[in-house]
Amino acid sequence: MKLYCGVGPNSYRVRIFMAEKGVDLPRVEVDLFKGEHKFPEFLKLNSLGQIPVLMLDDGTVITESVAICRYLEELNPEPPLFGREPVGRAKVEMWNRRVELQVMGTIGDYTFHTNEFFKDRVPQFPGFGEAQKLNVPRKWEWLDREMADGRPFIAGEQFSIADITAGVAAWLGEFFEIERPASLPNVNRWLERVRSRPSWNAQ
Amino acid sequence: MKLYCGVGPNSYRVRIFMAEKGVDLPRVEVDLFKGEHKFPEFLKLNSLGQIPVLMLDDGTVITESVAICRYLEELNPEPPLFGREPVGRAKVEMWNRRVELQVMGTIGDYTFHTNEFFKDRVPQFPGFGEAQKLNVPRKWEWLDREMADGRPFIAGEQFSIADITAGVAAWLGEFFEIERPASLPNVNRWLERVRSRPSWNAQ
Repeated sequence: MKLYCGVGPNSYRVRIFMAEKGVDLPRVEVDLFKGEHKFPEFLKLNSLGQIPVLMLDDGTVITESVAICRYLEELNPEPPLFGREPVGRAKVEMWNRRVELQVMGTIGDYTFHTNEFFKDRVPQFPGFGEAQKLNVPRKWEWLDREMADGRPFIAGEQFSIADITAGVAAWLGEFFEIERPASLPNVNRWLERVRSRPSWNAQ
Repeated sequence: MKLYCGVGPNSYRVRIFMAEKGVDLPRVEVDLFKGEHKFPEFLKLNSLGQIPVLMLDDGTVITESVAICRYLEELNPEPPLFGREPVGRAKVEMWNRRVELQVMGTIGDYTFHTNEFFKDRVPQFPGFGEAQKLNVPRKWEWLDREMADGRPFIAGEQFSIADITAGVAAWLGEFFEIERPASLPNVNRWLERVRSRPSWNAQ
Protein backbone atom coordinates (compact mmCIF):
# COMPACT_ATOMS: atom_id res chain seq x y z
CA MET A 1 0.00 0.00 0.00
CA LYS A 2 1.35 3.46 -0.80
CA LEU A 3 0.09 7.01 -0.56
CA TYR A 4 0.55 9.61 -3.30
CA CYS A 5 0.45 12.99 -1.60
CA GLY A 6 1.99 16.46 -1.49
CA VAL A 7 1.28 19.97 -0.28
CA GLY A 8 -2.23 21.31 0.24
CA PRO A 9 -5.15 20.76 2.58
CA ASN A 10 -6.30 17.32 1.46
CA SER A 11 -2.94 15.62 1.85
CA TYR A 12 -2.63 17.37 5.22
CA ARG A 13 -6.00 15.92 6.32
CA VAL A 14 -4.77 12.41 5.57
CA ARG A 15 -1.40 13.02 7.29
CA ILE A 16 -3.14 14.21 10.48
CA PHE A 17 -5.50 11.24 10.31
CA MET A 18 -2.58 8.80 10.02
CA ALA A 19 -0.72 10.50 12.89
CA GLU A 20 -3.83 10.16 15.10
CA LYS A 21 -3.96 6.46 14.22
CA GLY A 22 -0.23 5.99 14.68
CA VAL A 23 0.12 4.52 11.21
CA ASP A 24 2.52 5.37 8.45
CA LEU A 25 2.68 4.34 4.83
CA PRO A 26 5.27 4.47 2.08
CA ARG A 27 4.71 7.72 0.23
CA VAL A 28 5.18 9.04 -3.27
CA GLU A 29 5.55 12.83 -3.27
CA VAL A 30 3.54 14.50 -6.04
CA ASP A 31 4.91 17.97 -6.79
CA LEU A 32 1.88 20.16 -7.50
CA PHE A 33 4.08 23.12 -8.42
CA LYS A 34 5.68 21.10 -11.20
CA GLY A 35 2.17 20.03 -12.23
CA GLU A 36 2.94 16.36 -11.60
CA HIS A 37 -0.72 15.76 -10.69
CA LYS A 38 -1.60 16.56 -14.31
CA PHE A 39 1.08 14.33 -15.88
CA PRO A 40 -0.32 11.46 -18.01
CA GLU A 41 1.09 8.79 -15.68
CA PHE A 42 -0.67 10.37 -12.71
CA LEU A 43 -3.94 10.85 -14.59
CA LYS A 44 -3.97 7.07 -15.12
CA LEU A 45 -4.20 6.76 -11.31
CA ASN A 46 -6.71 9.57 -10.81
CA SER A 47 -8.37 10.98 -13.89
CA LEU A 48 -9.34 14.05 -11.87
CA GLY A 49 -5.68 14.96 -11.34
CA GLN A 50 -6.01 15.32 -7.58
CA ILE A 51 -4.08 14.15 -4.55
CA PRO A 52 -4.07 12.28 -2.23
CA VAL A 53 -4.39 8.84 -3.82
CA LEU A 54 -4.03 5.53 -1.99
CA MET A 55 -2.81 2.56 -4.01
CA LEU A 56 -3.40 -0.88 -2.52
CA ASP A 57 -1.00 -3.77 -3.06
CA ASP A 58 -3.25 -5.30 -5.74
CA GLY A 59 -3.26 -2.01 -7.68
CA THR A 60 -6.71 -0.86 -6.51
CA VAL A 61 -6.81 2.92 -6.36
CA ILE A 62 -8.76 4.90 -3.73
CA THR A 63 -9.10 8.66 -4.26
CA GLU A 64 -10.86 11.34 -2.14
CA SER A 65 -9.32 12.10 1.27
CA VAL A 66 -12.35 11.00 3.26
CA ALA A 67 -12.54 7.68 1.40
CA ILE A 68 -8.84 7.10 2.09
CA CYS A 69 -9.35 7.92 5.78
CA ARG A 70 -12.38 5.65 5.99
CA TYR A 71 -10.36 2.78 4.54
CA LEU A 72 -7.53 3.41 7.00
CA GLU A 73 -10.13 3.41 9.79
CA GLU A 74 -11.27 -0.06 8.70
CA LEU A 75 -7.70 -1.37 8.89
CA ASN A 76 -6.94 0.48 12.14
CA PRO A 77 -10.17 0.84 14.10
CA GLU A 78 -8.61 2.41 17.22
CA PRO A 79 -9.05 5.17 18.11
CA PRO A 80 -12.27 5.56 16.11
CA LEU A 81 -12.23 8.85 14.19
CA PHE A 82 -15.56 8.29 12.41
CA GLY A 83 -17.58 7.86 15.62
CA ARG A 84 -18.15 5.08 18.14
CA GLU A 85 -21.76 3.92 17.71
CA PRO A 86 -24.56 4.54 15.18
CA VAL A 87 -25.68 7.97 16.41
CA GLY A 88 -22.06 9.02 16.99
CA ARG A 89 -21.11 7.90 13.48
CA ALA A 90 -24.08 9.78 12.00
CA LYS A 91 -23.02 12.93 13.85
CA VAL A 92 -19.44 12.64 12.59
CA GLU A 93 -20.66 12.24 9.00
CA MET A 94 -23.02 15.20 9.47
CA TRP A 95 -20.40 17.46 11.02
CA ASN A 96 -17.61 16.49 8.68
CA ARG A 97 -19.88 17.40 5.78
CA ARG A 98 -21.08 20.60 7.43
CA VAL A 99 -17.59 21.96 8.07
CA GLU A 100 -16.38 20.72 4.70
CA LEU A 101 -19.23 22.31 2.74
CA GLN A 102 -19.71 25.44 4.83
CA VAL A 103 -16.23 26.41 6.00
CA MET A 104 -13.69 24.59 3.83
CA GLY A 105 -15.86 25.01 0.73
CA THR A 106 -16.23 28.76 1.17
CA ILE A 107 -12.47 29.14 1.61
CA GLY A 108 -12.03 26.88 -1.42
CA ASP A 109 -14.31 29.07 -3.54
CA TYR A 110 -12.10 32.05 -2.75
CA THR A 111 -8.89 30.27 -3.64
CA PHE A 112 -10.23 28.51 -6.76
CA HIS A 113 -11.61 31.77 -8.14
CA THR A 114 -8.76 34.12 -7.33
CA ASN A 115 -5.55 32.05 -7.28
CA GLU A 116 -3.39 31.72 -10.37
CA PHE A 117 -2.73 28.10 -9.43
CA PHE A 118 -6.34 27.09 -10.17
CA LYS A 119 -6.87 29.06 -13.35
CA ASP A 120 -7.32 25.86 -15.40
CA ARG A 121 -9.46 24.03 -12.84
CA VAL A 122 -12.64 26.08 -12.93
CA PRO A 123 -13.76 29.07 -14.94
CA GLN A 124 -12.53 31.75 -12.53
CA PHE A 125 -14.91 34.50 -11.41
CA PRO A 126 -12.81 36.65 -9.06
CA GLY A 127 -15.87 38.64 -7.96
CA PHE A 128 -17.46 35.44 -6.69
CA GLY A 129 -14.21 34.45 -4.98
CA GLU A 130 -13.98 37.81 -3.20
CA ALA A 131 -17.64 37.60 -2.13
CA GLN A 132 -16.99 34.17 -0.66
CA LYS A 133 -13.92 35.50 1.16
CA LEU A 134 -16.24 37.95 2.92
CA ASN A 135 -18.53 35.04 3.84
CA VAL A 136 -15.83 33.05 5.63
CA PRO A 137 -16.05 35.04 8.93
CA ARG A 138 -19.84 34.41 8.95
CA LYS A 139 -19.19 30.68 8.64
CA TRP A 140 -16.82 30.69 11.64
CA GLU A 141 -19.41 32.67 13.62
CA TRP A 142 -22.02 30.03 12.74
CA LEU A 143 -19.69 27.28 13.98
CA ASP A 144 -19.04 29.22 17.17
CA ARG A 145 -22.79 29.45 17.87
CA GLU A 146 -23.20 25.74 17.15
CA MET A 147 -20.47 24.93 19.71
CA ALA A 148 -21.98 27.11 22.45
CA ASP A 149 -23.09 23.95 24.29
CA GLY A 150 -19.50 23.62 25.47
CA ARG A 151 -18.70 20.31 23.77
CA PRO A 152 -14.95 19.89 23.34
CA PHE A 153 -14.97 18.68 19.74
CA ILE A 154 -17.01 19.47 16.66
CA ALA A 155 -19.06 16.27 16.57
CA GLY A 156 -19.27 15.83 20.36
CA GLU A 157 -17.12 14.49 23.17
CA GLN A 158 -14.54 12.74 20.98
CA PHE A 159 -11.98 14.02 18.51
CA SER A 160 -13.01 12.97 14.97
CA ILE A 161 -12.34 13.53 11.29
CA ALA A 162 -14.67 16.57 11.53
CA ASP A 163 -12.05 18.26 13.75
CA ILE A 164 -9.37 17.42 11.21
CA THR A 165 -11.40 18.94 8.37
CA ALA A 166 -12.24 22.10 10.32
CA GLY A 167 -8.70 22.43 11.71
CA VAL A 168 -7.26 22.20 8.20
CA ALA A 169 -9.82 24.77 7.04
CA ALA A 170 -8.52 27.15 9.76
CA TRP A 171 -4.96 26.46 8.64
CA LEU A 172 -5.87 27.09 4.99
CA GLY A 173 -7.71 30.30 5.83
CA GLU A 174 -4.67 31.61 7.69
CA PHE A 175 -2.41 30.66 4.79
CA PHE A 176 -4.55 32.76 2.44
CA GLU A 177 -4.97 35.53 5.04
CA ILE A 178 -8.74 35.23 5.23
CA GLU A 179 -10.29 36.77 8.31
CA ARG A 180 -11.36 34.55 11.18
CA PRO A 181 -12.96 36.80 13.80
CA ALA A 182 -10.96 37.02 17.05
CA SER A 183 -14.07 37.01 19.24
CA LEU A 184 -15.13 33.39 18.85
CA PRO A 185 -14.75 31.86 22.31
CA ASN A 186 -15.92 28.36 21.41
CA VAL A 187 -14.03 28.09 18.13
CA ASN A 188 -10.91 29.52 19.75
CA ARG A 189 -10.97 27.02 22.62
CA TRP A 190 -11.62 24.18 20.20
CA LEU A 191 -8.84 25.25 17.84
CA GLU A 192 -6.34 25.50 20.69
CA ARG A 193 -7.34 21.97 21.73
CA VAL A 194 -6.84 20.64 18.19
CA ARG A 195 -3.56 22.44 17.64
CA SER A 196 -2.08 21.13 20.87
CA ARG A 197 -2.33 17.55 19.57
CA PRO A 198 0.92 16.09 18.22
CA SER A 199 -0.92 15.13 15.01
CA TRP A 200 -1.20 18.81 14.08
CA ASN A 201 2.50 18.77 13.14
CA ALA A 202 2.20 15.64 11.02
CA GLN A 203 4.63 15.83 8.12
CA MET B 1 -38.08 8.92 14.55
CA LYS B 2 -39.38 11.29 11.87
CA LEU B 3 -38.10 12.79 8.64
CA TYR B 4 -38.48 16.42 7.69
CA CYS B 5 -38.37 16.57 3.90
CA GLY B 6 -39.84 18.16 0.82
CA VAL B 7 -39.12 18.78 -2.84
CA GLY B 8 -35.60 18.92 -4.23
CA PRO B 9 -32.70 16.58 -4.87
CA ASN B 10 -31.58 15.89 -1.32
CA SER B 11 -34.97 14.77 -0.02
CA TYR B 12 -35.27 12.65 -3.19
CA ARG B 13 -31.93 10.96 -2.44
CA VAL B 14 -33.20 9.93 1.01
CA ARG B 15 -36.57 8.78 -0.37
CA ILE B 16 -34.84 6.52 -2.94
CA PHE B 17 -32.51 5.21 -0.23
CA MET B 18 -35.46 4.34 2.02
CA ALA B 19 -37.31 2.64 -0.86
CA GLU B 20 -34.24 0.50 -1.61
CA LYS B 21 -34.14 -0.51 2.05
CA GLY B 22 -37.88 -1.08 2.23
CA VAL B 23 -38.22 1.25 5.20
CA ASP B 24 -40.59 4.12 5.74
CA LEU B 25 -40.74 6.80 8.39
CA PRO B 26 -43.31 9.32 9.58
CA ARG B 27 -42.70 12.50 7.62
CA VAL B 28 -43.12 16.19 8.13
CA GLU B 29 -43.46 18.03 4.82
CA VAL B 30 -41.40 21.23 4.70
CA ASP B 31 -42.71 23.57 2.02
CA LEU B 32 -39.66 25.21 0.46
CA PHE B 33 -41.82 27.47 -1.71
CA LYS B 34 -43.43 28.95 1.38
CA GLY B 35 -39.92 29.30 2.85
CA GLU B 36 -40.74 26.98 5.75
CA HIS B 37 -37.07 25.86 5.86
CA LYS B 38 -36.16 29.42 6.91
CA PHE B 39 -38.85 29.74 9.61
CA PRO B 40 -37.48 30.21 13.16
CA GLU B 41 -38.94 26.90 14.38
CA PHE B 42 -37.19 25.03 11.55
CA LEU B 43 -33.89 26.87 12.06
CA LYS B 44 -33.90 25.51 15.63
CA LEU B 45 -33.69 22.03 14.07
CA ASN B 46 -31.18 22.91 11.37
CA SER B 47 -29.48 26.27 11.64
CA LEU B 48 -28.47 25.96 7.98
CA GLY B 49 -32.13 25.98 6.91
CA GLN B 50 -31.82 22.87 4.79
CA ILE B 51 -33.79 19.66 4.34
CA PRO B 52 -33.85 16.73 4.86
CA VAL B 53 -33.55 16.46 8.65
CA LEU B 54 -33.95 13.28 10.67
CA MET B 55 -35.18 13.63 14.24
CA LEU B 56 -34.68 10.66 16.55
CA ASP B 57 -37.10 9.78 19.32
CA ASP B 58 -34.84 11.38 21.95
CA GLY B 59 -34.77 14.67 20.01
CA THR B 60 -31.32 14.14 18.46
CA VAL B 61 -31.17 15.81 15.06
CA ILE B 62 -29.23 14.44 12.08
CA THR B 63 -28.83 16.69 9.06
CA GLU B 64 -27.07 16.12 5.71
CA SER B 65 -28.62 13.51 3.39
CA VAL B 66 -25.62 11.19 3.41
CA ALA B 67 -25.45 11.24 7.23
CA ILE B 68 -29.16 10.39 7.37
CA CYS B 69 -28.67 7.55 4.88
CA ARG B 70 -25.66 6.24 6.78
CA TYR B 71 -27.70 6.15 9.98
CA LEU B 72 -30.56 4.32 8.23
CA GLU B 73 -27.97 1.85 6.92
CA GLU B 74 -26.86 1.13 10.49
CA LEU B 75 -30.46 0.38 11.51
CA ASN B 76 -31.23 -1.58 8.33
CA PRO B 77 -28.00 -3.16 7.10
CA GLU B 78 -29.56 -5.12 4.23
CA PRO B 79 -29.09 -4.59 1.37
CA PRO B 80 -25.86 -2.67 2.01
CA LEU B 81 -25.84 0.59 0.04
CA PHE B 82 -22.50 1.83 1.40
CA GLY B 83 -20.52 -1.22 0.26
CA ARG B 84 -19.99 -4.77 1.49
CA GLU B 85 -16.39 -5.01 2.73
CA PRO B 86 -13.58 -2.52 3.43
CA VAL B 87 -12.42 -1.97 -0.17
CA GLY B 88 -16.03 -1.91 -1.38
CA ARG B 89 -16.97 0.63 1.27
CA ALA B 90 -13.97 2.80 0.36
CA LYS B 91 -15.00 2.71 -3.31
CA VAL B 92 -18.58 3.71 -2.47
CA GLU B 93 -17.34 6.65 -0.38
CA MET B 94 -14.95 7.63 -3.18
CA TRP B 95 -17.55 7.40 -5.93
CA ASN B 96 -20.34 9.01 -3.98
CA ARG B 97 -18.03 11.97 -3.37
CA ARG B 98 -16.80 12.04 -6.94
CA VAL B 99 -20.27 12.18 -8.47
CA GLU B 100 -21.49 14.56 -5.78
CA LEU B 101 -18.60 17.01 -6.21
CA GLN B 102 -18.09 16.66 -9.96
CA VAL B 103 -21.57 16.15 -11.40
CA MET B 104 -24.13 17.22 -8.78
CA GLY B 105 -21.91 20.10 -7.62
CA THR B 106 -21.50 21.51 -11.12
CA ILE B 107 -25.26 21.36 -11.71
CA GLY B 108 -25.71 22.94 -8.26
CA ASP B 109 -23.38 25.82 -9.16
CA TYR B 110 -25.56 26.59 -12.16
CA THR B 111 -28.79 26.56 -10.19
CA PHE B 112 -27.45 28.44 -7.14
CA HIS B 113 -26.02 31.20 -9.32
CA THR B 114 -28.85 31.64 -11.80
CA ASN B 115 -32.08 30.66 -10.03
CA GLU B 116 -34.23 33.23 -8.28
CA PHE B 117 -34.94 30.66 -5.55
CA PHE B 118 -31.33 30.80 -4.29
CA LYS B 119 -30.76 34.53 -4.48
CA ASP B 120 -30.33 34.78 -0.69
CA ARG B 121 -28.26 31.63 -0.32
CA VAL B 122 -25.03 32.65 -2.02
CA PRO B 123 -23.87 35.84 -3.68
CA GLN B 124 -25.07 35.02 -7.19
CA PHE B 125 -22.67 35.35 -10.11
CA PRO B 126 -24.76 34.32 -13.14
CA GLY B 127 -21.67 34.28 -15.39
CA PHE B 128 -20.14 31.61 -13.20
CA GLY B 129 -23.42 29.68 -13.18
CA GLU B 130 -23.62 29.74 -16.98
CA ALA B 131 -19.96 28.66 -17.27
CA GLN B 132 -20.67 25.72 -14.98
CA LYS B 133 -23.73 24.80 -17.04
CA LEU B 134 -21.39 24.41 -20.01
CA ASN B 135 -19.15 22.17 -17.89
CA VAL B 136 -21.89 19.68 -17.04
CA PRO B 137 -21.66 17.74 -20.35
CA ARG B 138 -17.89 17.37 -19.78
CA LYS B 139 -18.58 15.86 -16.36
CA TRP B 140 -20.95 13.26 -17.84
CA GLU B 141 -18.36 12.45 -20.51
CA TRP B 142 -15.79 11.93 -17.76
CA LEU B 143 -18.15 9.54 -15.96
CA ASP B 144 -18.79 7.67 -19.20
CA ARG B 145 -15.05 7.13 -19.71
CA GLU B 146 -14.69 5.97 -16.12
CA MET B 147 -17.44 3.38 -16.65
CA ALA B 148 -15.95 2.01 -19.87
CA ASP B 149 -14.87 -1.13 -17.99
CA GLY B 150 -18.47 -2.29 -18.29
CA ARG B 151 -19.32 -2.38 -14.57
CA PRO B 152 -23.06 -2.16 -14.03
CA PHE B 153 -23.02 0.41 -11.24
CA ILE B 154 -20.95 3.46 -10.43
CA ALA B 155 -18.93 1.99 -7.57
CA GLY B 156 -18.75 -1.55 -8.99
CA GLU B 157 -20.94 -4.64 -9.19
CA GLN B 158 -23.53 -3.53 -6.62
CA PHE B 159 -26.05 -0.71 -6.57
CA SER B 160 -25.01 1.87 -3.95
CA ILE B 161 -25.64 5.37 -2.68
CA ALA B 162 -23.29 6.59 -5.44
CA ASP B 163 -25.90 5.49 -8.00
CA ILE B 164 -28.58 7.36 -6.06
CA THR B 165 -26.50 10.55 -6.03
CA ALA B 166 -25.64 10.35 -9.72
CA GLY B 167 -29.18 9.32 -10.69
CA VAL B 168 -30.61 12.30 -8.83
CA ALA B 169 -28.01 14.53 -10.51
CA ALA B 170 -29.29 13.30 -13.90
CA TRP B 171 -32.87 14.01 -12.79
CA LEU B 172 -31.91 17.50 -11.58
CA GLY B 173 -30.02 18.28 -14.78
CA GLU B 174 -33.08 17.33 -16.84
CA PHE B 175 -35.34 19.44 -14.65
CA PHE B 176 -33.15 22.49 -15.35
CA GLU B 177 -32.71 21.53 -19.01
CA ILE B 178 -28.94 21.17 -18.81
CA GLU B 179 -27.39 19.18 -21.64
CA ARG B 180 -26.38 15.58 -21.06
CA PRO B 181 -24.75 14.35 -24.28
CA ALA B 182 -26.77 11.64 -26.06
CA SER B 183 -23.68 9.67 -27.07
CA LEU B 184 -22.66 8.26 -23.70
CA PRO B 185 -23.11 4.50 -24.03
CA ASN B 186 -21.96 3.59 -20.52
CA VAL B 187 -23.83 6.36 -18.73
CA ASN B 188 -26.96 5.67 -20.77
CA ARG B 189 -26.94 1.95 -19.97
CA TRP B 190 -26.30 2.69 -16.30
CA LEU B 191 -29.06 5.31 -16.12
CA GLU B 192 -31.57 2.95 -17.74
CA ARG B 193 -30.63 0.33 -15.13
CA VAL B 194 -31.12 2.81 -12.26
CA ARG B 195 -34.37 4.20 -13.61
CA SER B 196 -35.90 0.77 -14.02
CA ARG B 197 -35.69 0.18 -10.25
CA PRO B 198 -38.95 0.69 -8.35
CA SER B 199 -37.09 3.03 -5.94
CA TRP B 200 -36.76 5.59 -8.73
CA ASN B 201 -40.44 6.45 -8.27
CA ALA B 202 -40.17 6.81 -4.50
CA GLN B 203 -42.56 9.47 -3.27
